[in-house]
Amino acid sequence: MGAHLFDEGVALEWHGENLARGHTHPAWRNFIGPFGGLTAAQAMQAILTHPQRLGDPIALTVNFAAAVADGEFDVIAQPARTNRSTQHWTVSIKQGDEVMLIGTAMTAVRRDTWAMQEASMPQVPRPADVPPPTTDPRVEWVRRYDLRFIEGGFPGGWHGGDSGASLTRLWVRDNPPRPLDFASLTAMSDIFFPRIWLRRAQFVPLGTVTMTVYFHAREAQLAETGSGYLFAQTRGQGFGAGYFDHTAQVWNEAGTLLATTTQVYYFKE
Amino acid sequence: MGAHLFDEGVALEWHGENLARGHTHPAWRNFIGPFGGLTAAQAMQAILTHPQRLGDPIALTVNFAAAVADGEFDVIAQPARTNRSTQHWTVSIKQGDEVMLIGTAMTAVRRDTWAMQEASMPQVPRPADVPPPTTDPRVEWVRRYDLRFIEGGFPGGWHGGDSGASLTRLWVRDNPPRPLDFASLTAMSDIFFPRIWLRRAQFVPLGTVTMTVYFHAREAQLAETGSGYLFAQTRGQGFGAGYFDHTAQVWNEAGTLLATTTQVYYFKE
Repeated sequence: MGAHLFDEGVALEWHGENLARGHTHPAWRNFIGPFGGLTAAQAMQAILTHPQRLGDPIALTVNFAAAVADGEFDVIAQPARTNRSTQHWTVSIKQGDEVMLIGTAMTAVRRDTWAMQEASMPQVPRPADVPPPTTDPRVEWVRRYDLRFIEGGFPGGWHGGDSGASLTRLWVRDNPPRPLDFASLTAMSDIFFPRIWLRRAQFVPLGTVTMTVYFHAREAQLAETGSGYLFAQTRGQGFGAGYFDHTAQVWNEAGTLLATTTQVYYFKE
Repeated sequence: MGAHLFDEGVALEWHGENLARGHTHPAWRNFIGPFGGLTAAQAMQAILTHPQRLGDPIALTVNFAAAVADGEFDVIAQPARTNRSTQHWTVSIKQGDEVMLIGTAMTAVRRDTWAMQEASMPQVPRPADVPPPTTDPRVEWVRRYDLRFIEGGFPGGWHGGDSGASLTRLWVRDNPPRPLDFASLTAMSDIFFPRIWLRRAQFVPLGTVTMTVYFHAREAQLAETGSGYLFAQTRGQGFGAGYFDHTAQVWNEAGTLLATTTQVYYFKE
């Protein structure tokens, strides 16, 4: 049995103190370049495997400056400041002299404190009771996930009618299943198809320009989640003048909040 | 009449291609260091006044690595990649060799497209019908704002009871009034007091570690807003293991969405 395709996708080789090298993988192709969630996960993976890393991920922001071209790329991950229990990171992905991604991250040694989950997972059918989509995905990377849409599924056609809302709720896990880690949680935080396609039921060219992920899970919650499904929910806030955003939450099957995330997309027309 | 204290607060002098210098201002003092919203606005101001800037702000993420000490600081703002209509920026604030803030931003030349505001402003009393707080602020920077709390105001005491939710809704504008620009919108995106203080009605030491602002306003919406009030709303999502987040939206008096924003705070206990 070979490695899981997610592990192949985020595989990096270290070539310097802050320099790792990866390569694009045909299993993760999107319309143009790779699935952005995988690119974000590669940036996270460089931090996770950096010998100077202190603690677990708290936050990651990545700006997609250009589509990664097929082939090799460099990930430069550098601690910008290390405090007693927190660490701030800059990260970038380059191909030659071209900057494809810039970002920042924060990691920290966590300790037990008061805890409270204000964003509750809604009451929804269990994953086993929700059928997978029957249509073939248009891009390769979608085959890497087991998706069970509960609400706001991919538009059945481009009829151009206003759907009235851009809420999507779904179960998702790696296909085949794989124990959750911070890199795969980063990738799954980008699982949502663009809100504008749902809202307008009209195809418009677009792409994510920035994504932020806040990690609520510690190692213990990742272990509890294992290779189970995640429940993910997203909704757009404002669309106009070429850009729109969404906010999203990701829970595990037990209803524990694992991550909250936001994005901005560019769109045409 | 002197300059407005916000203009004094974000004033920068350029000393190199990507290097501007500012200084802290007693009018903007917080418990430790300056109001983080002003520090974020200083980072934004460096990008706004950079001679190579292309277009309007779309997104800004700043990580607060350490509290800015009283005195001078350097802001280093650098275009990392400039495309035809978009530009990706790295920004940092340093005092000597010490990194106090790292961040990224994106600016873009916007054009008219389909537009839709999904996050609607709730029905609330007008600013003139909401009295200002009667208690004196504990920190200086709060005096720089005219605040009208509608819901979830600052706890009247630290009685330690669970408030059941961490929703705050308020009107806010500069005090004295000042026409809105992207720098002051950045600062007001950080107007919220910490959600954990509301939720627990208990004082705990804390600080913002990262903030992201998405700009929905263009120059035209800033001009329409003028020196009117903004309506701001926020709510926490997850609290635990030393960190919590919030999401927030900011509208103008006419109900136009100007910005959406998220933060993570560190807290003790």
